Amino acid sequence: MATIDHLGIAVKSLAEARSFYRRMGLEIVGEETVEHEGVRLAMVPLGESRIELLEALAADTPIGRFLAKRGEGLHHVALRVDDLNATVEKLKKAGTKFISDEIKVGAGGHLYVFVHPSSTGGVLLELCEDPPQGV
Amino acid sequence: MATIDHLGIAVKSLAEARSFYRRMGLEIVGEETVEHEGVRLAMVPLGESRIELLEALAADTPIGRFLAKRGEGLHHVALRVDDLNATVEKLKKAGTKFISDEIKVGAGGHLYVFVHPSSTGGVLLELCEDPPQGV
Repeated sequence: MATIDHLGIAVKSLAEARSFYRRMGLEIVGEETVEHEGVRLAMVPLGESRIELLEALAADTPIGRFLAKRGEGLHHVALRVDDLNATVEKLKKAGTKFISDEIKVGAGGHLYVFVHPSSTGGVLLELCEDPPQGV
Repeated sequence: MATIDHLGIAVKSLAEARSFYRRMGLEIVGEETVEHEGVRLAMVPLGESRIELLEALAADTPIGRFLAKRGEGLHHVALRVDDLNATVEKLKKAGTKFISDEIKVGAGGHLYVFVHPSSTGGVLLELCEDPPQGV
């Protein structure tokens, strides 16, 4: 069954965005810098999902360019699926556009791929699958 | 504990957007017209959350104006909280801006209010509370 893994929100200042969620009484965890993605992030756990607040490390990064073009706001929605390979194959056969063709391996071993907004109703959609348990 | 209640996504054509989610193997339920909000919607259940696909009934509606200005994409994120009154009071004391001051009662008796994007990092944020059980 598919669930919402996380929402990625591009913000100018992680400190300011954190203060809003903290005022709501929400926990903010796992602040970290991911150099190869040019981003500093903090997570707001929300049940089986989470919000990822994304601050650009520099203007010339994906989040930096997004902020310059669109301003602060939702950058992507990530759906967790059971069988990413099968889902991607099915979508490709139906002509769905992807940002890049191959499935990538992220931090902690999870698999992910991005569907182009033109195929989803204007939303940059990440599809991901948790790494196998107990391996 | 707060959870993601739903994501509202503004689409030009409900039929086209439905076809993408159906190809992913997801269920689409509850298509209905909400005249007073000027919208026709369909829901994609995702665990404890859901996506609401929102098609405008006319150009001069909130979703119609959003589509004209921004194009298709995420319109709002809704977080379900346990005590909406207490959450709103806390946020107001801290200077958070709301779209309208009063908490409203929606379909099925749930309570909701919208926080202004300028307070949340660029996201139109709905806060909602389920109606009391067994009433």
